[in-house]
Amino acid sequence: MTRRAGVLRLATAGPQDTAPLAEAIDRGDIDPATVVAIVGKTEGNGCVNDFTRGYATLALKLLLAERLSCPLSDIERRVAIVMSGGTEGGLSPHMLVFCRETTGEAAAAPRLAIGIGLTRAFRPEEIGRAGQIEATAEAVREAMADAGIASAADVHFVQIKCPLLTKERIEEAAGRGAVTTTADTYHSMALSRGASALGVARALGEIDTAPEAAVCRDWSLFSRVASASAGVELLRNEIVVLGNAPGWGGDLVIDHDVMTDAIDAHAVRRTLQRLGIGEDGIVAVLAKAEAAPSGTIRGRRHTMLDDSDIHSTRHARALVGGVLAGVIGDTMLYVSGGAEHQGPAGGGPVAIIGHARDAGRSRQSAA
Amino acid sequence: MTRRAGVLRLATAGPQDTAPLAEAIDRGDIDPATVVAIVGKTEGNGCVNDFTRGYATLALKLLLAERLSCPLSDIERRVAIVMSGGTEGGLSPHMLVFCRETTGEAAAAPRLAIGIGLTRAFRPEEIGRAGQIEATAEAVREAMADAGIASAADVHFVQIKCPLLTKERIEEAAGRGAVTTTADTYHSMALSRGASALGVARALGEIDTAPEAAVCRDWSLFSRVASASAGVELLRNEIVVLGNAPGWGGDLVIDHDVMTDAIDAHAVRRTLQRLGIGEDGIVAVLAKAEAAPSGTIRGRRHTMLDDSDIHSTRHARALVGGVLAGVIGDTMLYVSGGAEHQGPAGGGPVAIIGHARDAGRSRQSAA
Amino acid sequence: MTRRAGVLRLATAGPQDTAPLAEAIDRGDIDPATVVAIVGKTEGNGCVNDFTRGYATLALKLLLAERLSCPLSDIERRVAIVMSGGTEGGLSPHMLVFCRETTGEAAAAPRLAIGIGLTRAFRPEEIGRAGQIEATAEAVREAMADAGIASAADVHFVQIKCPLLTKERIEEAAGRGAVTTTADTYHSMALSRGASALGVARALGEIDTAPEAAVCRDWSLFSRVASASAGVELLRNEIVVLGNAPGWGGDLVIDHDVMTDAIDAHAVRRTLQRLGIGEDGIVAVLAKAEAAPSGTIRGRRHTMLDDSDIHSTRHARALVGGVLAGVIGDTMLYVSGGAEHQGPAGGGPVAIIGHARDAGRSRQSAA
Amino acid sequence: MTRRAGVLRLATAGPQDTAPLAEAIDRGDIDPATVVAIVGKTEGNGCVNDFTRGYATLALKLLLAERLSCPLSDIERRVAIVMSGGTEGGLSPHMLVFCRETTGEAAAAPRLAIGIGLTRAFRPEEIGRAGQIEATAEAVREAMADAGIASAADVHFVQIKCPLLTKERIEEAAGRGAVTTTADTYHSMALSRGASALGVARALGEIDTAPEAAVCRDWSLFSRVASASAGVELLRNEIVVLGNAPGWGGDLVIDHDVMTDAIDAHAVRRTLQRLGIGEDGIVAVLAKAEAAPSGTIRGRRHTMLDDSDIHSTRHARALVGGVLAGVIGDTMLYVSGGAEHQGPAGGGPVAIIGHARDAGRSRQSAA
Repeated sequence: MTRRAGVLRLATAGPQDTAPLAEAIDRGDIDPATVVAIVGKTEGNGCVNDFTRGYATLALKLLLAERLSCPLSDIERRVAIVMSGGTEGGLSPHMLVFCRETTGEAAAAPRLAIGIGLTRAFRPEEIGRAGQIEATAEAVREAMADAGIASAADVHFVQIKCPLLTKERIEEAAGRGAVTTTADTYHSMALSRGASALGVARALGEIDTAPEAAVCRDWSLFSRVASASAGVELLRNEIVVLGNAPGWGGDLVIDHDVMTDAIDAHAVRRTLQRLGIGEDGIVAVLAKAEAAPSGTIRGRRHTMLDDSDIHSTRHARALVGGVLAGVIGDTMLYVSGGAEHQGPAGGGPVAIIGHARDAGRSRQSAA
Repeated sequence: MTRRAGVLRLATAGPQDTAPLAEAIDRGDIDPATVVAIVGKTEGNGCVNDFTRGYATLALKLLLAERLSCPLSDIERRVAIVMSGGTEGGLSPHMLVFCRETTGEAAAAPRLAIGIGLTRAFRPEEIGRAGQIEATAEAVREAMADAGIASAADVHFVQIKCPLLTKERIEEAAGRGAVTTTADTYHSMALSRGASALGVARALGEIDTAPEAAVCRDWSLFSRVASASAGVELLRNEIVVLGNAPGWGGDLVIDHDVMTDAIDAHAVRRTLQRLGIGEDGIVAVLAKAEAAPSGTIRGRRHTMLDDSDIHSTRHARALVGGVLAGVIGDTMLYVSGGAEHQGPAGGGPVAIIGHARDAGRSRQSAA
Repeated sequence: MTRRAGVLRLATAGPQDTAPLAEAIDRGDIDPATVVAIVGKTEGNGCVNDFTRGYATLALKLLLAERLSCPLSDIERRVAIVMSGGTEGGLSPHMLVFCRETTGEAAAAPRLAIGIGLTRAFRPEEIGRAGQIEATAEAVREAMADAGIASAADVHFVQIKCPLLTKERIEEAAGRGAVTTTADTYHSMALSRGASALGVARALGEIDTAPEAAVCRDWSLFSRVASASAGVELLRNEIVVLGNAPGWGGDLVIDHDVMTDAIDAHAVRRTLQRLGIGEDGIVAVLAKAEAAPSGTIRGRRHTMLDDSDIHSTRHARALVGGVLAGVIGDTMLYVSGGAEHQGPAGGGPVAIIGHARDAGRSRQSAA
Repeated sequence: MTRRAGVLRLATAGPQDTAPLAEAIDRGDIDPATVVAIVGKTEGNGCVNDFTRGYATLALKLLLAERLSCPLSDIERRVAIVMSGGTEGGLSPHMLVFCRETTGEAAAAPRLAIGIGLTRAFRPEEIGRAGQIEATAEAVREAMADAGIASAADVHFVQIKCPLLTKERIEEAAGRGAVTTTADTYHSMALSRGASALGVARALGEIDTAPEAAVCRDWSLFSRVASASAGVELLRNEIVVLGNAPGWGGDLVIDHDVMTDAIDAHAVRRTLQRLGIGEDGIVAVLAKAEAAPSGTIRGRRHTMLDDSDIHSTRHARALVGGVLAGVIGDTMLYVSGGAEHQGPAGGGPVAIIGHARDAGRSRQSAA
């Protein structure tokens, strides 16, 4: 009795476009009951007033609720939907549908494993602070257990959706005499992402301690696999752990590396090399991007942080998307902006899911 | 009696920043009297209301006029100054100062050669039409002669600064009963660049015929080395031809290739390979970028042409800058947007100036 | 037996925010079965990649379908939903819910009357051409009849939602050997709005003839009450005619004027004066805005048409919103951009719905 | 022996456009030796990467240096040049040239008086703190004395150009063990403007105390006449005080009022009424604009602070420009963004310079 992870990468024609998923279901490529997570790129600005994330999420929930004949709220409980805005440069809007099913297939070598973890809902004053860090660390451990991943070394990407502060939430806290870590709703996104990433780093033993005071201050503390995205539509952290584990069948594997800066193409090449695959074998690419806080990349000045017309996260996604596309030969890449404590300052994690080198053998032995 | 081309790449801290050039002159690295062209990237939006190009140009003229104790108008006659706006993604603002001097040095293998060509001033109704195409072709031939380049195969980059239409110019023509090719001043930039590029293609024998009707319509006609930039500050075309030629000393050489699309990193790798240099040997990189008019890159949808917040040329520069930086490991790249008839649709030329493989020997033999 | 028009103006907290409408239904302020049109402002960029319009439309359909226990497609047939993107400057996102019900109330003076008209679906090659002009004119006449408005002089605002061209639609036409009026999808929005406005002008006798060649060319032809908004989500024109007519009860009336340029505050003051109301009596304000194609406002240069960072329609909405808010003392204004043939070049219609001066009497006589 | 203030309002065709001023000098309308200040609007984004301010300033210095046959540095000492970026909505780029000359003319009623004040250069750690507040207050008092204005009640506008922090300046301070008030260069603009405005309020007795801790925190403290603009090009504060005073001839007077929010058109109407002039008599209009920090204008939600595509100061200028243009019938308005402690939160000062009602008489008596 093994499990099998499936990943379907679907191009979308806009945030409202669920037709590709509907067709995949109609064709039998996906059993909607097996979907555990959808991670995607939508073509908004990826900043505060990006409504393409919510629009895509609503459209996906409607489709799944219809196909599973259940209320929307059921879908919210069953499926982690993480939409990341911003397809600058050549990035191509798409979604990654993660499925999980039980099979009779005998498992050979470790294969792609997916685990889901949820924290409790946070009170506004916990966001960006120790409460969020610790609860995230706990949920990451649960997600690892859910995936059957025993060692932190086998975790290759941890995608988190985390809450942010709104004026209403800040005031609700104030009404109880509680003070939130910031009054700036935009900055709360960074703090929530940062605390979440430090929680991942703690769970995986990447850092020994994650003091609250380090959040968005001490850039020497970071996770090499965390990828966090903040959104207004939830109050808890939702965690998708991706790694390799025994007990999983299929022919998918995942590996990752860390880009030390935004133009570190070697990190991608190393990952492909370790996976032993070429462009053909790639199923999905996930990476984080940010403008180097130092104002320079390898000693050269960049202008991302001084640009009042285009937000730095938009520049960074376009740049990293170009670097990855140059190596991989494809622009359908999940590149997300805002990499606080997710990789070193100015850099970030990159993960690739691909068809296992030995997949032919694997399939045989499963027959 | 030979000539020697010098290229100095100088980082700038803003469009007004001429200090690096002043210091290079003070240090004796550059004799201001030998400067024939300055090509640079400034940090404006690269579109209609980008005033960083004019600001940088004015500042550079002031500096050179002061150092050469001559009026500004003399500098305008002596030096072709081509500022290209837009340092999206990681692109780093800088300038390339091209110098030309006579030396007693014996010339060995062909080396970087620089030629300058100027057309007559165009009447507004000639811009984007046969008159501009033909005059540009003629001026390219003159610039080749100026550089001592006999064969079109030895031309590796042709940088052109060309005029655009303003409301005043359109009305002046109308007053004479003449009709300009467009009444849209923004579109006139594309038409002027396109006609200029077709003129280059004619001069180099890349195409057999360049009918006026093909301008910005028939994308099958293009030059593999043209790079055109339109600006309000001139009425003629100014042309800088870069190639390799005998009779030139020094240790610099140039080569180029054509990116077939925006993520064609192989073109850059091939160029480096032919030059026989690594990252260390690179002196300057020049490339063109544009959003594929098809709306797709290798079959993947891009959103550059639907984005009403960020102009497609801005996305394209960020993307191509990322692709090049991933290969070269440096963000100080001259990437210019708007590649009408400059490379195939969605692609563009890329040229690299580097230290010749055999430069050690060359230097020795020159001693 | 009379009819009564209701207009509810509801502030929204985002494009997804249907809570104010749900609460109005819960409170009994609105019977969802009586809703015939919803016209609103959402906070996107109002240009090509503005997905807030579709998001708000989907959210509203879901709410109404739930409350009326009917499928989404029924709502599409029953209710014209016109979302206009762009709340630049101080404009406040909101929606106007138009209801229509039959009452026993005796009608006194003419009161606000609402009529709905629909054209057939257009083939792509008809958009921006005579076919759209004529069908729109016909549908406006039907909507007037639906509203019981006999004279064009009693029509004060005609809101139209019209289709645009997409690549798919252009290609479908080409497959049949038909040529669309433009290949530029963005420009098709202007052409569709322009043809629709000329159709209104024809129906109301504002112009004698509306030749196809005049669309977006001859600005001397325009309607003084048309307001058109293009969207991807339909293929036909949907028309909401607002005017005053006998046979309608309630206490609402409408009047309009034409702003001759973007800063023509007098037009608003005249409208208020004719209505005989002050700020307190205003129920809704609807206006169109555009950047004067001449490049000047009362002889002063504006920079809206040269700005490559912010689209001119965005500037225009902010400006006209400021002009209106300065007079009215309120920023909850429906100001829509892109006023081709909707008012004179650089200007546009402005309409105000308010409580009738004699409403007290009217209410009494209805008792 | 009296003085006379002159104000010339000149339309510009771009930041580089000094032709209108050159022509005014050629015509004899302006004696360049009498110019003491130039205040203008340029068409950049008005934010960090707005280079139109520096470009216009350089071009103006070049012109004046040429006409006065003196080095650029002399012009910097003689003339306060305050360029404010951002002509959103309908705002029309222009400059106000302030001249001051001695005449034999007998002075009648108080007339427009111009005084200049300069602080010492600030150390980086003084910016946004008590040192800047106090030095500004002192310089305002000096400028009042320079203008011969005895009472604070006769001061109607205080335009200040103030420095900002750069990375270099922050590091220079750190090297001496000094800590600047912020490490965020953009935020330093607000702090410098805020401290400068509090200095004005202190000098004019508008507030009793201006504690350092109040800067950009306690919005109840503000000046009703301060208008501050931060720029990278200076280290001291430059102050232009405008008021009415005896001993000044000519026919110009100034008055001001305070807009309580961005749509407070009444403030403008009151000012015109007190001046007793109509649209014809207006020579210049100066105002400040900002997005209400509360997120609402008269209870209506605005979206300026949530917009990641367009900076809130850009929205605010467009909005206030529309409000003023609706009243005044002209878009050539100096509207500057970022009104920290300059008027109440969400509002700002507005001043009008006009021809005195009794100017006819005045001219007569001067004859």
